[in-house]
Amino acid sequence: MTDPAPRHRVPTDVRTPFSTPWLTVREALTGTGAGPGDRWYYLDHPGCALVLPVTEQGEVLLVRSWRIAVRQWCVEAPAGRCEPGETPEQTARRELREETGAHGGTFRSLGSVWPSSGTSNELVHLFVAHGVRPGPAEPDPGEVLHLHPLPVRKAVAMAAGGELRDAPTALALLLAEHQGALDHGGGR
Amino acid sequence: MTDPAPRHRVPTDVRTPFSTPWLTVREALTGTGAGPGDRWYYLDHPGCALVLPVTEQGEVLLVRSWRIAVRQWCVEAPAGRCEPGETPEQTARRELREETGAHGGTFRSLGSVWPSSGTSNELVHLFVAHGVRPGPAEPDPGEVLHLHPLPVRKAVAMAAGGELRDAPTALALLLAEHQGALDHGGGR
Repeated sequence: MTDPAPRHRVPTDVRTPFSTPWLTVREALTGTGAGPGDRWYYLDHPGCALVLPVTEQGEVLLVRSWRIAVRQWCVEAPAGRCEPGETPEQTARRELREETGAHGGTFRSLGSVWPSSGTSNELVHLFVAHGVRPGPAEPDPGEVLHLHPLPVRKAVAMAAGGELRDAPTALALLLAEHQGALDHGGGR
Repeated sequence: MTDPAPRHRVPTDVRTPFSTPWLTVREALTGTGAGPGDRWYYLDHPGCALVLPVTEQGEVLLVRSWRIAVRQWCVEAPAGRCEPGETPEQTARRELREETGAHGGTFRSLGSVWPSSGTSNELVHLFVAHGVRPGPAEPDPGEVLHLHPLPVRKAVAMAAGGELRDAPTALALLLAEHQGALDHGGGR
């Protein structure tokens, strides 16, 4: 990974051809601006944080969320966009509380991944949390979601079998399992 | 997953506020169109196919791709957008040939996942292929990438350790390992 950046593919200018408070499109110009691939459109995204909240009872507090973009209910870990000034862990704790009502717990990072680096600069920060405590959920008015707790082992088996179709959630579960982060307070 | 769709979150109208040949933004209106969350913006994406190409020598033919959106070199499996009329496997075979020059092989599906269902309807179809044969690469003129073969075990270990930051690639490797699809022609 010591290769230098390819000079003809480093943006010389970045424009904003479309923007709303919820979604921003950037247009990067590279090379001469007129050759093949000299114009690249992508979402400018503030990043997300996701957490696998594990209870003392060995359940992971997933949610079923209605996703307008795909017109489906998706089983996912609590997650959401990073707000200005938040660390990724703060985002994860806020989303955990808003979406499930749970709070507290010991957080451990599972790393950060790009879900779709061809079309977005979104970076998803993955966490597992142990010892979270239940409480009343406070979802955003625009969100439609329900708590969907699963035994940890069942959630991992569903991820491994391709039954959990939210890529960051499935990846977080398999990473946490590989890193010994799902049992007894994260194996520490 | 037998819940009905929430009526106030099923789009009653979908507009296209921004479109280029490479990226399309939809605006879905739900509910009254004026309440919180009644307006949702997302990318309308044709879907992608990704393949883990495993050679007879036990290497997986990854690529290092320069990603303009994140200004970085990313280690990824060959992947790309589904073109009209293609099946996901046809897309994966085309991208394999274009990006690595390899062709042929026995393909096996690892399932399909949403990388970012909050902001895009992109669905990524994951495959593993065994017995692919080398050949000269034919990358798109706009793409900058290099072949980056890794021993299968090393690639899985890197994914499990959080070293491969492309989420679909890391997930495909961990799914393939869990499903016994990496050894000896996919375990069949």
